[in-house]
Amino acid sequence: MSPRKIGVTELVLRDGHQSLLATRMATEDMVAACEDIDQAGYWSVECWGGATFDSCIRFLNEDPWVRLRTFRELMPNSRLQMLLRGQNLLGYRHYEDTVVDKFVEKSAENGMDVFRVFDALNDPRNMARAMNAVAKTGKHAQGTICYTISPLHTTEGYVRLAGQLLDMGAQSICLKDMAALLQPQPAYDIVRGIKETYGEDIHIAVHCHSTSGVTLVALMKAIEAGADSVDTAISSLSLGPGHNPTESLVAMLEGTGYETGLDMDRLLKIRDHFAAIRPKYAAFESAVLVDTEILRTQIPGGMLSNLESQLKAQGAGDKVKEVMDEVPLVKAAAGHPPLVTPSSQIVGTQAVFNVLMGPYKRLSGEFADLMLGYYGETIGPRDPEVIKIAQEQTKKEPITVRPADLLPPEWDSLVEEATKLEGNDGSDEDVLTFAMFPTVAPGFFQTRDEGPRSVAKTEAQLKAEKEAQAGAVTGPIKYKVSLGGRAHTVQVEPA
Amino acid sequence: MSPRKIGVTELVLRDGHQSLLATRMATEDMVAACEDIDQAGYWSVECWGGATFDSCIRFLNEDPWVRLRTFRELMPNSRLQMLLRGQNLLGYRHYEDTVVDKFVEKSAENGMDVFRVFDALNDPRNMARAMNAVAKTGKHAQGTICYTISPLHTTEGYVRLAGQLLDMGAQSICLKDMAALLQPQPAYDIVRGIKETYGEDIHIAVHCHSTSGVTLVALMKAIEAGADSVDTAISSLSLGPGHNPTESLVAMLEGTGYETGLDMDRLLKIRDHFAAIRPKYAAFESAVLVDTEILRTQIPGGMLSNLESQLKAQGAGDKVKEVMDEVPLVKAAAGHPPLVTPSSQIVGTQAVFNVLMGPYKRLSGEFADLMLGYYGETIGPRDPEVIKIAQEQTKKEPITVRPADLLPPEWDSLVEEATKLEGNDGSDEDVLTFAMFPTVAPGFFQTRDEGPRSVAKTEAQLKAEKEAQAGAVTGPIKYKVSLGGRAHTVQVEPA
Repeated sequence: MSPRKIGVTELVLRDGHQSLLATRMATEDMVAACEDIDQAGYWSVECWGGATFDSCIRFLNEDPWVRLRTFRELMPNSRLQMLLRGQNLLGYRHYEDTVVDKFVEKSAENGMDVFRVFDALNDPRNMARAMNAVAKTGKHAQGTICYTISPLHTTEGYVRLAGQLLDMGAQSICLKDMAALLQPQPAYDIVRGIKETYGEDIHIAVHCHSTSGVTLVALMKAIEAGADSVDTAISSLSLGPGHNPTESLVAMLEGTGYETGLDMDRLLKIRDHFAAIRPKYAAFESAVLVDTEILRTQIPGGMLSNLESQLKAQGAGDKVKEVMDEVPLVKAAAGHPPLVTPSSQIVGTQAVFNVLMGPYKRLSGEFADLMLGYYGETIGPRDPEVIKIAQEQTKKEPITVRPADLLPPEWDSLVEEATKLEGNDGSDEDVLTFAMFPTVAPGFFQTRDEGPRSVAKTEAQLKAEKEAQAGAVTGPIKYKVSLGGRAHTVQVEPA
Repeated sequence: MSPRKIGVTELVLRDGHQSLLATRMATEDMVAACEDIDQAGYWSVECWGGATFDSCIRFLNEDPWVRLRTFRELMPNSRLQMLLRGQNLLGYRHYEDTVVDKFVEKSAENGMDVFRVFDALNDPRNMARAMNAVAKTGKHAQGTICYTISPLHTTEGYVRLAGQLLDMGAQSICLKDMAALLQPQPAYDIVRGIKETYGEDIHIAVHCHSTSGVTLVALMKAIEAGADSVDTAISSLSLGPGHNPTESLVAMLEGTGYETGLDMDRLLKIRDHFAAIRPKYAAFESAVLVDTEILRTQIPGGMLSNLESQLKAQGAGDKVKEVMDEVPLVKAAAGHPPLVTPSSQIVGTQAVFNVLMGPYKRLSGEFADLMLGYYGETIGPRDPEVIKIAQEQTKKEPITVRPADLLPPEWDSLVEEATKLEGNDGSDEDVLTFAMFPTVAPGFFQTRDEGPRSVAKTEAQLKAEKEAQAGAVTGPIKYKVSLGGRAHTVQVEPA
């Protein structure tokens, strides 16, 4: 029997550098790898999402739509894939349906093939319109299950959610583990459950981060259970808060009944490319290598570092432990939402507020909205006491309808506002950029003509840094210093 | 059915820092973790071996026997484990049998419990005497299979070797993957083969490095095949050329039919301890994070870095690629020995000679001995042409007997020589230290009284280095410099 083919989604162009280098990689540092990526034999190439879009206009003075068209041109044989936050699109609020339609249409037109649609609360109503819009373009709509651990999350529940996504027209299902919580046995059970319930021909993709160090094993068990494709990142931008290395996946499957069909020579070239690029972004690197405590705290690595900076900014850096203990309580009060953008930020910020000002003395606007149903349904009931506080503070009523049903049409007003901005080029793409990031887009439009502004280190900076480090390691260094015409010799060493 | 218990051997005190920090960790940086290690519930604690012994007397001015007794005292509830190179003991040559007996006896007396006995060529005759000596002390003799990949190495062959080790009295079998070559399927097949051939109650331990990124999956498959214990290192000294993280193993097994029984609170304390220690040894760190090319080249990471330094020392740093291509040819000519101390050094050095001087123009003395059978039998036939060159160059005849059979008794002369050395304390332990490292021991005996000399960085050095690094990143810095009573402003930036 010939081995079963396992598809691979390469993450290096999106989630890889998002997780390891704070999403700072410039397009110029990607283009040289595109031909090899295009030829390596991946099932798809993830290359676009909310954070890369944001980073383009906020830090890199790059037009994200130009980046997408660049990928399309350089990788003509590949399925390009993006991560889409359902009704939130790439932003942090719900958009009215016609904006959703427009965004999907334009993304498809600019070259996107596979839309991985998720909702932070796993509320199918928040994914329906986007998936429907994808179907209309003839592109691939992937329905997503955000994986988390709580007393209410069960294999049966995840299998049921997969069924709802299939009913809504999902062409494949993604089991998305954004916090490296997926252990081998649940990975096996969920994939098997979906296949047994809805048919062995349902395409299942599995996405894991590697922080806990166990998720490559989870991918193995998911594959044994029937998973059809898995997400990895080329080894030189892998591991830690990132993902399992693509080459390790290939090696893992050798001799088993499965194979990726990837071209190892291409993979090694891609690896070498990003190995050379990575040091240029060292200033943005996360230090975490492996951390299994997240399996207990369930606080994703990125969320933890955010909490730490928030606390430090308020002069309360010593409260990290207290906040970490508060997070699960807030999560429970909010009905056990998975912690992923934006719920991770909302729950995290409220935990900080609770620790600094007392439990629920002050709610953030977003947390109040979450409690009142304005982000959608949660798996568990939300704490009635806190709902009452949210009502009192915001003078808003709790809702149970699909949140976007309450939004008035907004496309025309977005066009009007965007068109007024200096540097706006009048395209629908620019309207969407403005719609996604209304506070950042205006500045970007003004400076767009100046062209990309990389935040990577230059070769000279890298060299100087290496020397400084070497100097610090080797102990006493003598300098010749000339001052006022006289030469002095100065010896410097660590005190 | 209650989960099957999987034993864990913690590697941090030996192979962990050997693989990641060039074996430089001082005893003083280990003692504070010993109580937690002792109480965590490990099957055994690996804490002694050739490289740690060598490093103690060569770099740290520590008596390795004192280190062993320290461990014995601080971990009264644990099985202490060591790695023993069969007839080579902890050195690089074959010792005569009475020296083997004496070494094992003294190690047991000083506190060793489990002796993992291996031979670089997998020649059982080179392990027999040591295993017999262990049995006499009543301690645990573990027979070892060195895992490698070659056209001649098969699952059946490894299973057969396990049988030979069991016949020689092995109380357990270790499948030892020193180069991170063990992939999931062979791991499963070999463990299953041994169990099915010799009985399910044969204790099998599996040792893997993690360089290739796939060996945690190999451990999972080995456990599914029936492995009884596995080797891991606490997460803060894990991964890369080191080992899979202990905590990840625990997490991996949750919910499966297996469990380690380890105390996670203890593990986190051990983790925090070594997380604080590791930066002090940063100068000795290997940079490799993950590398799957070793599956093709089969050159262990440590061997590669040795080759690079050898070539650089000869001004031939540009020949690395050529030497890497030569290694498999030399390995094949030598009958496909696994590459592990000392065969990795011997094959590597000969590959360098071949590239720099032409194929087999000059043989190293050790390589000639290997070709002539003086290290034992190899799995495949050795190249007759090269054997002839070895004979001509050394005027020695090829042998087929057990190499140690040709050695005359040597204990008395070792005692005599050792006793003459300044600083020798007259103990059998000192004779053995001298026997293992005859060129290093004399210097160590002289300076032993001065006490341990750590090569770790001090807190002050770490701080200075951090500042230097931060300075290098942020670009131009202005300093106020006062000299001869006059103040100057000096701007410094990378050139």
